[in-house]
Amino acid sequence: MARINDNYLKLPGSYLFSEIARRVAAYKEKNLKADVISLGIGDVTRPLPKACVDAMQSAVEEMGNVETFRGYGPEQGYEFLRDAIAEHNYKAKGIDIKSDEIFISDGSKSDCGNIQEIFDNNCKIAVPDPVYPVYLDTNVMAGRTGKLLEDGRFEGVTYLPALPENNFSPALPKERVDIIYLCSPNNPTGTALTKSELAKWVNYARENEAIILFDAAYAAYIAENDIPRSVYEIEGAREVAVEFRSFSKTAGFTGTRCGYTVIPKELFGKSENGEKIPLHKLWLRRQTTKFNGTAYIIQKGAAAVYSDEGQRQVKETINYYMENAKIIREGLKKANLTAYGGINAPYIWLKTPTPSWEFFDKLLTEAEVVGTPGAGFGSAGENFFRLTAFGNREKTIEAVNRIVDKI
Amino acid sequence: MARINDNYLKLPGSYLFSEIARRVAAYKEKNLKADVISLGIGDVTRPLPKACVDAMQSAVEEMGNVETFRGYGPEQGYEFLRDAIAEHNYKAKGIDIKSDEIFISDGSKSDCGNIQEIFDNNCKIAVPDPVYPVYLDTNVMAGRTGKLLEDGRFEGVTYLPALPENNFSPALPKERVDIIYLCSPNNPTGTALTKSELAKWVNYARENEAIILFDAAYAAYIAENDIPRSVYEIEGAREVAVEFRSFSKTAGFTGTRCGYTVIPKELFGKSENGEKIPLHKLWLRRQTTKFNGTAYIIQKGAAAVYSDEGQRQVKETINYYMENAKIIREGLKKANLTAYGGINAPYIWLKTPTPSWEFFDKLLTEAEVVGTPGAGFGSAGENFFRLTAFGNREKTIEAVNRIVDKI
Repeated sequence: MARINDNYLKLPGSYLFSEIARRVAAYKEKNLKADVISLGIGDVTRPLPKACVDAMQSAVEEMGNVETFRGYGPEQGYEFLRDAIAEHNYKAKGIDIKSDEIFISDGSKSDCGNIQEIFDNNCKIAVPDPVYPVYLDTNVMAGRTGKLLEDGRFEGVTYLPALPENNFSPALPKERVDIIYLCSPNNPTGTALTKSELAKWVNYARENEAIILFDAAYAAYIAENDIPRSVYEIEGAREVAVEFRSFSKTAGFTGTRCGYTVIPKELFGKSENGEKIPLHKLWLRRQTTKFNGTAYIIQKGAAAVYSDEGQRQVKETINYYMENAKIIREGLKKANLTAYGGINAPYIWLKTPTPSWEFFDKLLTEAEVVGTPGAGFGSAGENFFRLTAFGNREKTIEAVNRIVDKI
Repeated sequence: MARINDNYLKLPGSYLFSEIARRVAAYKEKNLKADVISLGIGDVTRPLPKACVDAMQSAVEEMGNVETFRGYGPEQGYEFLRDAIAEHNYKAKGIDIKSDEIFISDGSKSDCGNIQEIFDNNCKIAVPDPVYPVYLDTNVMAGRTGKLLEDGRFEGVTYLPALPENNFSPALPKERVDIIYLCSPNNPTGTALTKSELAKWVNYARENEAIILFDAAYAAYIAENDIPRSVYEIEGAREVAVEFRSFSKTAGFTGTRCGYTVIPKELFGKSENGEKIPLHKLWLRRQTTKFNGTAYIIQKGAAAVYSDEGQRQVKETINYYMENAKIIREGLKKANLTAYGGINAPYIWLKTPTPSWEFFDKLLTEAEVVGTPGAGFGSAGENFFRLTAFGNREKTIEAVNRIVDKI
């Protein structure tokens, strides 16, 4: 019988969100009149910007006519989209990233998951703790880790804890690592690294010849000064960092699927015989071999984000979510719960009075509100809890009122 | 410096289609009045079926309204699409495949490329020769092969040559293999396996505990009886085969991106300690970790393929392409060139009087027609040449006339 990839068996059996769904379904079954409000799923609820809708309508029509029909698109994505990204997200902000250093994809999850393929299997990785599961699980599946230990961590991985004690700015690793995943603004803590904190990592990577994989999915939510939107705002980052960006949370594309990866031309790894190999070339090979591009229709929708009206509509929606975040933060304060984040990101990370799954059950059964237990994101997430600001305004207010009253 | 995946360095430097594009560009630069017709790219030219266009227009509108907006979709794809596939492609044809055995994706290329991840790195693979490069390259990148040899083959891979001598039905491998890639109807030869020939492979896999990865991207082009559309038409296939299907060539979705993988619940591999592990579970883990689904809009478009009008429109387009194929075949006959395929698939595989790249140059410079040299698909493709039937009718006729006159 064909041997399967045994690394998959190292992963914990139940997924965080499946377990949450199971508990919520069980509660609803016993309580038929339940009115459960979810502040748990990291999914948006507001509709797509009208500019995107209009652009996609035109694109769909083009696809129905022989003169304007599009088949396979360019390997790295259409120039109209890459140019718009390079112009708006980089050039206009004084950052030197060129259109041909951008690879359009079907979203950050795919890119953050697949990027590890271009590296040697023996590379040592560092991941945040708490962590977006994709960075870690994909390396477990590739065989870069040992087994899952009792404390919830995997052998052979360097964890970078983010806690109140260090202001959610992890300390540099003590041991040598090759690849460092960073996510700022951060899911799940909702906090963000300042420019000097991010510079600390870029300098570390430069001095230690490590590569930073920088997930900037929430860049559009940054409200404070001194919080970089792009790792390339830091001098020297072009030679040490890959950046991932997404239209999911920027423009509501969670069910529409579009993102991009930036790989500067000066970013290298080395081969077994010491030769410098450009990562750009490897990613291009990976994508041209295993991916056939993002739909034309979707790329047209994404490009519309950069029009004047697109920008206006996107900001409006982001403001809507961040108003929810403010309501949640203020409510938690009233409920005497300590909370972090929710200023530069649509997540609020609250300290729980009990272990996080117990708090989950209490919140569900006593307030009929669903959140995400921090333990699900790693051992440094224990005794914390994530609430998201993506919901409907009225339900968010109601959920917060229930927390204030009952918790 | 972080070590890169050295396996990528085993791949040949220049890609087949990049080299073709280079030679065509060079010719056009020297011959400004050139009127080059391409029968080389495996890309469709007819617009999307109107049923799909209409469905996507509605879906785009839904995404613009808060009441009907969709975020993240179900893990294996929307039920409306999986149910339609299970009903039309399987149940209606007497094949037992259930909706939950179907995984919607962004296309066969991704699936055919990523499927190897769930298997152990030491698995022995068998690939067709000539071969769709994805099956082979992705295993090179994973480290399942040795280096590229002078004859164009990779060490450690079992090749299954398809030639006129064996009627393009490869012989069973002599050595043990774990994973067998098959593509029927075949790209690039345009030929297809009969039911008994495919049964030979299913029986082999059952007797030798191997897994068949069956690429059925061109199922919709089958015209003759006794050519199976699905590997599951063969008894016993549920326990040995994964099937890949695509909307790309069925409905013109090359630039719209949708496909699906079928993994029956009885399909197992084994772990290091001999435990039977269902492949369904592994693929679900892979996809839920590294992929966030195909856009709602696109899935709506794909589902429309199964409406009555969708079916009518799809058949009309397929007939258009297959009429091109007929014109090409008859023209090649007139030109005294031996040709295969083009009856159950939109590809014609012709025997070249000279090595295939020489024939490529001759065709380009003397007839201003572009095709794909068989050597680009593997050593058994040498002295063959692929022409595709996806082009415009008038240009196809003209290209064929030029071949008849000048070659």
